[in-house]
Amino acid sequence: MPMQNARKYMDQALELAKAAAKAGEVPVGAIVVKDGEIIGRGANRPLTDHDPSAHAEIIAMREAAKALGSDRLTGCGLWVTLEPCAMCAGAIAHARIGRLYYGASDPKGGAVEHGPTLFDQPTIHHRPEVYGGIGSDEASALLKAFFAARR
Amino acid sequence: MPMQNARKYMDQALELAKAAAKAGEVPVGAIVVKDGEIIGRGANRPLTDHDPSAHAEIIAMREAAKALGSDRLTGCGLWVTLEPCAMCAGAIAHARIGRLYYGASDPKGGAVEHGPTLFDQPTIHHRPEVYGGIGSDEASALLKAFFAARR
Repeated sequence: MPMQNARKYMDQALELAKAAAKAGEVPVGAIVVKDGEIIGRGANRPLTDHDPSAHAEIIAMREAAKALGSDRLTGCGLWVTLEPCAMCAGAIAHARIGRLYYGASDPKGGAVEHGPTLFDQPTIHHRPEVYGGIGSDEASALLKAFFAARR
Repeated sequence: MPMQNARKYMDQALELAKAAAKAGEVPVGAIVVKDGEIIGRGANRPLTDHDPSAHAEIIAMREAAKALGSDRLTGCGLWVTLEPCAMCAGAIAHARIGRLYYGASDPKGGAVEHGPTLFDQPTIHHRPEVYGGIGSDEASALLKAFFAARR
């Protein structure tokens, strides 16, 4: 994929992250794309929904899977503004996401390049192609502003 | 908790696993218990729901969180017939589940005593007490019968 398109999709995910922040949620946004079309959108909302699983990636993948009528998102790309946690990385593997594009690294909660580095585990049953650092400055700025305002 | 009660709750989870098998889903069941009361139930159903996140544990925790009006299940016990995968173990940590009781070990997909051993990771933000092997013979028998019938 040309980097211009990768950035265009990340901008959509960043808009969802901003919406999460406005709702008082940690600002993370995600979209799922198949054949150039956005088929799933998610803004982080565990507090709003009373749902520990309601991370942006899970919401976007659930919407996309409903749209495709399958629990598998083979051939789809997932754009998310923050490095996925173990829950979301596990769901990405279950969904057979083809390509994962993420923004900011997350040394504390990330599970792709940090912590359990889930896609490097011998027992993982699916590994997406992974591209990090797209729009990471904007994603990090949103997170820093959010947590600074809460202190 | 007396082992008799632990077994009683696991029997409820095993009934949900049997229901999953009847629906053509991998037979895994889960319940969430708070103060002796079952507040969440889940039978594995990713195929039925077109939802890669619809594992028994996630469904049970979502129901319990809705019941409590919070994304946190502090002080709750989770009973599940199979060792949780990375997605579910991550969700268990997000939900702050107090005690995890599981049945059969899962060397291929488990993430508690196998693979990433998620609760042993330095970056994990919550570790439940973990009790494995409760009702594991029944849980394993259900899984073996299910996969044997599909060959």
